[in-house]
Amino acid sequence: MPDSAVLLIDCPDQRGLVARVSSLLYQQGANILHADQHRDEALGLFFMRVEWTLDSTDESRFDLDRFELAFAPLATQLEMHWTLTSSAHRTRVALFCSQTLHCMVDLLHRWRSGELRCDIPLIVSNHREVESLAAFYGVLFAHVPITAATRADAEQRQLDLLAEHAVELVVLARYMQVVSPAFVARYPARMINVHHSFLPAFTGARPYHAAHGRGVKLIGATSHYVTEVLDDGPIIEQDVARISHRDQVEDLVARGRDLERIVLSRAERWHLERRILCYGNKTVVFD
Amino acid sequence: MPDSAVLLIDCPDQRGLVARVSSLLYQQGANILHADQHRDEALGLFFMRVEWTLDSTDESRFDLDRFELAFAPLATQLEMHWTLTSSAHRTRVALFCSQTLHCMVDLLHRWRSGELRCDIPLIVSNHREVESLAAFYGVLFAHVPITAATRADAEQRQLDLLAEHAVELVVLARYMQVVSPAFVARYPARMINVHHSFLPAFTGARPYHAAHGRGVKLIGATSHYVTEVLDDGPIIEQDVARISHRDQVEDLVARGRDLERIVLSRAERWHLERRILCYGNKTVVFD
Amino acid sequence: MPDSAVLLIDCPDQRGLVARVSSLLYQQGANILHADQHRDEALGLFFMRVEWTLDSTDESRFDLDRFELAFAPLATQLEMHWTLTSSAHRTRVALFCSQTLHCMVDLLHRWRSGELRCDIPLIVSNHREVESLAAFYGVLFAHVPITAATRADAEQRQLDLLAEHAVELVVLARYMQVVSPAFVARYPARMINVHHSFLPAFTGARPYHAAHGRGVKLIGATSHYVTEVLDDGPIIEQDVARISHRDQVEDLVARGRDLERIVLSRAERWHLERRILCYGNKTVVFD
Amino acid sequence: MPDSAVLLIDCPDQRGLVARVSSLLYQQGANILHADQHRDEALGLFFMRVEWTLDSTDESRFDLDRFELAFAPLATQLEMHWTLTSSAHRTRVALFCSQTLHCMVDLLHRWRSGELRCDIPLIVSNHREVESLAAFYGVLFAHVPITAATRADAEQRQLDLLAEHAVELVVLARYMQVVSPAFVARYPARMINVHHSFLPAFTGARPYHAAHGRGVKLIGATSHYVTEVLDDGPIIEQDVARISHRDQVEDLVARGRDLERIVLSRAERWHLERRILCYGNKTVVFD
Repeated sequence: MPDSAVLLIDCPDQRGLVARVSSLLYQQGANILHADQHRDEALGLFFMRVEWTLDSTDESRFDLDRFELAFAPLATQLEMHWTLTSSAHRTRVALFCSQTLHCMVDLLHRWRSGELRCDIPLIVSNHREVESLAAFYGVLFAHVPITAATRADAEQRQLDLLAEHAVELVVLARYMQVVSPAFVARYPARMINVHHSFLPAFTGARPYHAAHGRGVKLIGATSHYVTEVLDDGPIIEQDVARISHRDQVEDLVARGRDLERIVLSRAERWHLERRILCYGNKTVVFD
Repeated sequence: MPDSAVLLIDCPDQRGLVARVSSLLYQQGANILHADQHRDEALGLFFMRVEWTLDSTDESRFDLDRFELAFAPLATQLEMHWTLTSSAHRTRVALFCSQTLHCMVDLLHRWRSGELRCDIPLIVSNHREVESLAAFYGVLFAHVPITAATRADAEQRQLDLLAEHAVELVVLARYMQVVSPAFVARYPARMINVHHSFLPAFTGARPYHAAHGRGVKLIGATSHYVTEVLDDGPIIEQDVARISHRDQVEDLVARGRDLERIVLSRAERWHLERRILCYGNKTVVFD
Repeated sequence: MPDSAVLLIDCPDQRGLVARVSSLLYQQGANILHADQHRDEALGLFFMRVEWTLDSTDESRFDLDRFELAFAPLATQLEMHWTLTSSAHRTRVALFCSQTLHCMVDLLHRWRSGELRCDIPLIVSNHREVESLAAFYGVLFAHVPITAATRADAEQRQLDLLAEHAVELVVLARYMQVVSPAFVARYPARMINVHHSFLPAFTGARPYHAAHGRGVKLIGATSHYVTEVLDDGPIIEQDVARISHRDQVEDLVARGRDLERIVLSRAERWHLERRILCYGNKTVVFD
Repeated sequence: MPDSAVLLIDCPDQRGLVARVSSLLYQQGANILHADQHRDEALGLFFMRVEWTLDSTDESRFDLDRFELAFAPLATQLEMHWTLTSSAHRTRVALFCSQTLHCMVDLLHRWRSGELRCDIPLIVSNHREVESLAAFYGVLFAHVPITAATRADAEQRQLDLLAEHAVELVVLARYMQVVSPAFVARYPARMINVHHSFLPAFTGARPYHAAHGRGVKLIGATSHYVTEVLDDGPIIEQDVARISHRDQVEDLVARGRDLERIVLSRAERWHLERRILCYGNKTVVFD
C-alpha cells in the first residue's frame, strides 16, 4: 500500500466548508483517495475525513509540511479541531489482557498479517497466560499483578510502561480489571475496550449470565472508548448473534467470543486508519 | 395443509419422558410430523412439543378424543402441564393499534394470504386511522378512545368486546397505550406486544430517541408476552438492523418498522402454531 | 420534509472535481445537506451525489435554474453525465404484479404512509388478484392478460399505458412474466425487479426449489435493474435469511417473502431519492 | 464436561422410531441430555441424534457396550445406518493449509482453549509459512510441496502421513490445491473444506474477484464436505457480510476472512460433536 495522508476535522457547521478544504487540497496538488463528510444538524457540527496519496509515479511527492502551513490558518479561522496523519507514522499500541486470550490471538495475527498497520511494543497482563503468545509474536510481555491493595501501584507501573514505550493507543482485549478515572484521563479517546454485551443492555460484570437470565433471543458485543463511567463510553462497533432456549450460559460465552473478536478488531483498525471522530458520547465512523 | 394435532408439555424433568409420550403416541397410531424437546437443567424442567397428522389417506382418521383419554392419567402421574390442540381449531385473535399502521397492514395481509392461520373477528383502536383498512379486510372495527379520565371505562369496554367475540389472543400491533395489570391478568401469556427496541435496552417511551442519544450502532425490535411490568414480559423474538452516525431519529424509526413487522408477525405465527412455552420470564420457542 | 435538490454526477476521474463542484455550490449559496463521492480506480471513474436545501427560513429560495445555467458548462468541460432533480418533482411509478401480492401490499402502504415519495398512477397485472387492493389505494388498475400468442400485443398495450400515464419508473413487484428486450430498452435503468434468490445463484424459475435442492443454509433475495439478460442486471440490494434442514420449500417461500419486501422497497426508495448510479453492470448506492 | 455418548441414526422413515429408540434408552437407564429428530418427507428418511450422560454421581456408570449389544439387532431390523460414539474418544484431526494462515490460527486457538475437543497430531502444507505456528502449538508439521509433475507422489505421501497418524478427519483450512477423486474417496464425509464464496455462486478460483465483478452487495463463505466435484459437496455452514461499492477486491478478501473462520470452525466443531448427518448432497445439522 502506498503512503497516504489523512486529515480529520470537526468544527462548527457553516456553508462552504467542503469547498474551502477541497479547494486548498486541489491547489496543493492532492490526489484524493477518499473523502467523507457528516453534519450533525441538531448540534450544528461538521465532520470530515479526507485521504490522499503522498507518493506519486508521475511527479514529485506531496509536501505535507507545506500543506500543514497553508491549512493551519484556515483551520483556526473556521474553529476546527483537526489532526493530520501520514500513514508512514505507525501508531504504537499496547494490548492488555487477563486470562482469556481469544481476542489477543486474533489481534496479534491480524497485526502480523498486515491487516492492522501499527507497532505493538508491549503486552500487559495481570496474569501469565499470554506470556508464551507474546514471545511467539516477539512482543515484550509485562506481568503486572493486581490486588485491591496494590491497585494504585500497579496502575502507576502500567502508566510508566506505557510512557516508556511511547504508547499512543491502549487496547483492552478482555482485560478484566476496572481502570481508574485517573488512568482513563491519560488516554482520552485512546483506550478501546470490548464489552461482552449489546450496550447499553447488561453493563457490568457477567453480562452473558444476565442475558441468559433475561431470556433474550440475541446476544451482542460492543467495542467502545473507555471513559470514567464503566461501559458508558462512545460506542465504536456492535454485533449480535442469534441464540435460542437451547443455549446455556457457556454457549453464550462461546458464541460471544466470535462477536468480541470482530467488534474489537474493527474498532482498532478504524482507529489506526483515522476513521473515528468522537463527539459528546458518540462516534462518527467513516468506514 | 392437512389437519394435525399439537401436544405441548412442560413438567418436572425425569428419565423416560420421551419414551413414555412417544410410546403412547405410537400405540395410538400417530404419524408424527415433528417432535422437539428441551430440558432446563438448572431448573429441572422438561418441555416437549409433538405434532402429528389427523388425516390419513390409507386408514382411519386419528381419534384425538381417545388419545386424550389415554394421555390424561399419564400426564397427571408425571405432573405435566399440557395442552392438546387440533389445527382444525382456529384461534380467535383481536388486533389492537393506534395511529401507526405498518404492523396492521402486515399482519392482515399475512392473515389473508394464509400465512397466519386464525380468525380475526375484531380490530380495536383508540384512533380511527385503521377503520378503512379493517373494512377492506372485512373485520369489525371498534373505536375505543382513551383519556386519562376514561381509561377504566375504556378498558372495560375492550374487555367486553373481547369476551363478546370469544377472543383467545390479543396482539398489540403498535398500540401506544399502557394496559392495566387487571387487563393483563385476563390474558396471561395470551397478549403479545412489539416494543421498538432491543430489550432490555431502552424500555419505556421513545426508544428510538434513546438509541440515537446513546449512539448505538444497531437498533432492534422485540416481541414479547405482556406482563404487569412494562416491557418486561417473556421475550419471543428479537431482530436488529445496522445503523450509522448518518441515521437521524426518523431514519431509525423507518428502519425499525421493518424489524417490528418481522418480530411481531413471527411471534403471532409461533403462538398460533403452538410453538411457544413460557416459564418464569422466558420462552421456549420450538421453531 | 422541506424541498431539496439532488445532483448526481458520473464522469472520468481527475483531480479537483470535488473542489470545483463544491465551490460552485458554495458561490450559489447552497446549504448542503449530504455529499458523497466514490472513485472507481480501476476504471478511472468518479461518482458524486450532493443534496442541498431549496427552502430557507432566513433568506431567499435557492435558484435552481440559475445554478443549472452555471453548472452546465462546467459539466460539459469535465465530460460529466449528470442529473439535477428537485424533490418537488414526484417520480411517476407504475407497479406490475401477478398473483402474489405481498410486495404490492408492502409498497402501497409505504407509499401511503409517506415512506416512498412518488406518484403511483398505475398498477398493471396479468391477473385480477390485485384489483381490490388497487381500488383501496385509489390507483388505476389495468388488467393485461398475457399468453404466448398475445405477448407482443400485451406488451404494446403495457407500453401505451405507461406512456399515457407518463410513467418514469417501472417496479416489477413479483411480476412473473419475462419482459422482452424491446420493452426493457424503453426503460433503461428505470425498471426494477425483485428476484427471489441471492444472485448470481439460482437464476431463472423456481429459485427456492433450486436452493432447497442444493441444501444451502441461507436463502436470499435480490433487487436489480432489468436488462436484456434475465436476472443479470445491476444489483441494487440483497438480503439473506438463515434456514435449516427443517425448512421445506414452502418454508423457504414464506421466509423469502420477508426478504423480497425489504430489498424491493429499499431499491425503489433509493431510486426515488436519486441515490443510485449505474455503471457497467454494477451500481453505486449512496445510502 | 462429563463424558457422554452420542447415537446418530438415519434410516427409512416409519412409525414408532422415536418410541422404540427412546424406550430402549430408558430401559438401559440413559439420562438423555439432548434428543433431536428430522424427517425428510419427500425422500421418506428419518434422522435422529441422541446424547446421554455416561458418568453419574448417584449410580453406576452407563454401560455402553451392553447398550450396543441391545441396540444392534433393533438397528438391523429397522435398516438403520448408525454410529455410537463416546465423548471419551477424541477424534484425530489433520489440518491442511497453504500460505494464508488466518483459519489455522483460529482453529488452533479454539483447540487449545478447549472449544474443539479433538487431537491434532498433524499439520500438512505445501508451503512453510505455518511451520512456526505448528511448533508453537506442539503439532508435527509435514511440508509436502506440490507441483503438477509431483502431484500423485505428493498425495501418496499425504495419505501415508494420514494413515500413520490414524487421522479420522481432514480439515482443509484454506488449502489451495485441488484434491484428487482418489484422495477424496478415502475420506468420505470426513474431509471439510472452506470455500470463500456463498455457494453455489462463484465456484472455482478467485471467488472474491468474481463477486466484485458481478457487483453483489453481500459476500459469503461456505464450509462443506469435499466430494469428487469441486465446490459441490454437502454444505455444512454459510455466512455472509454486507459490502458496498466502496469495497475493493482486497476489502472483500479481508471481510471474507472473518466469515471463513466462522464457517470452518463451526463445521469442524459440529463434526466433532457428531451433529452432522449427510444424505444425498445435503446435510442435517443438529445444532
